[in-house]
Amino acid sequence: MGAHSSDAVTSDPSITGVADDPRIAYDHPGVSELFAVLAYGEISAFYRLAEDARMAPTLQGRVALASMAAAEMNHFETLVQALSGRGIDVYTAMDPYVRALDEYHASTNPSTWLETLVKAHVGDGLAADFYREIAHTLDPAVAATVREVLAETGHSEFVVHEVATRVKASSQDKARLMLWGRRLLGEAITQAQYVLAQREELTDLVITASGDLNGVAALFDRMQEQHAERMKVLGLV
Amino acid sequence: MGAHSSDAVTSDPSITGVADDPRIAYDHPGVSELFAVLAYGEISAFYRLAEDARMAPTLQGRVALASMAAAEMNHFETLVQALSGRGIDVYTAMDPYVRALDEYHASTNPSTWLETLVKAHVGDGLAADFYREIAHTLDPAVAATVREVLAETGHSEFVVHEVATRVKASSQDKARLMLWGRRLLGEAITQAQYVLAQREELTDLVITASGDLNGVAALFDRMQEQHAERMKVLGLV
Repeated sequence: MGAHSSDAVTSDPSITGVADDPRIAYDHPGVSELFAVLAYGEISAFYRLAEDARMAPTLQGRVALASMAAAEMNHFETLVQALSGRGIDVYTAMDPYVRALDEYHASTNPSTWLETLVKAHVGDGLAADFYREIAHTLDPAVAATVREVLAETGHSEFVVHEVATRVKASSQDKARLMLWGRRLLGEAITQAQYVLAQREELTDLVITASGDLNGVAALFDRMQEQHAERMKVLGLV
Repeated sequence: MGAHSSDAVTSDPSITGVADDPRIAYDHPGVSELFAVLAYGEISAFYRLAEDARMAPTLQGRVALASMAAAEMNHFETLVQALSGRGIDVYTAMDPYVRALDEYHASTNPSTWLETLVKAHVGDGLAADFYREIAHTLDPAVAATVREVLAETGHSEFVVHEVATRVKASSQDKARLMLWGRRLLGEAITQAQYVLAQREELTDLVITASGDLNGVAALFDRMQEQHAERMKVLGLV
């Protein structure tokens, strides 16, 4: 299921020999933590998308969210394979991340279909931005796994069209969704900081990727800018 | 998403030239109806599995149901491509089947985790049995699409293990689940008969595949026998 030949790519440390000296080695313990938090992120996103789809006004909308949810599970399978290639049980590894991700979702429960769409789009986007920020520092085999699970799902066109159309027609919807977008970002940062405070090895990976602690602050700043760009594409500016 | 090279297989009528005279031609109007009912079956199964997963006692259980649900959506994509290769909009085509499938699910709402597992297993099984019954009469390109969407999802081991273990330990659970299995079959037959009474072209396809009306009755009989076999594997005998 969507895992294709990824286990060949991700479970063979020998291919790191061709890396151009990444700062984060294949066997950095933070790598498994990264895979684990991504894995639980996929599961929790799956169930949120499936639940939020109840607000869809049309069958097309329900199908769009179901397809996004299915893509999350395909990515989850890739992560399970990558973790088991490292001799790690995915359930044990995910456990420390359940609380933070569940709290993110509980604190950003959409109350309308438009909020659901914006949340799906913003959540995918933040995860992809984070990857782009650290990708160049990862061992190529690790980067390949992360790239595969954070690949664009191809459903953003549907979301952008639906949201941009409604926002153009209603300044009230627009004002509400701008606040909503700000809240999504705020809660994501809150939970990310909580996770980094708890998980030393993951934190070490992010600091190493960013250069130093100032680099981590700069990384969060750039993610905020990219979030603002994304909101603009939705007409939320 | 899971569609691979299927559009090449399903949208090229010229390859029917190699068929060993199937009784049902590539362009039989019932074929699009068959794809449409399967397509809505995938969507409705997706949302039922995602919703019923709330009863899972463990994260492993939730993941198992999410993976089954994701597989349904991958199959849905295959059907969308097959239908669009025939110039047919999937939403219009699915519309006549929404009521029967929604009513099947509404009338078989599981109230326990074990009922959820049995329902997931029995539903997949009935669909696969139906395919096996008519497969040999279908044009090879059509058969390839149907085979792809009714392929075993590989999650039945989890279900069989969970159910068989519990049933061995509790004769009360066993008695309840035997009644439940009978109800699932009964409701499925009721809705199948409703659909066949409404949809002439699909009915013609099934009658042609079965030889005649007596053949359709025999088909339903065999599906009941296969259902009984499946219940036996779950320890429900």
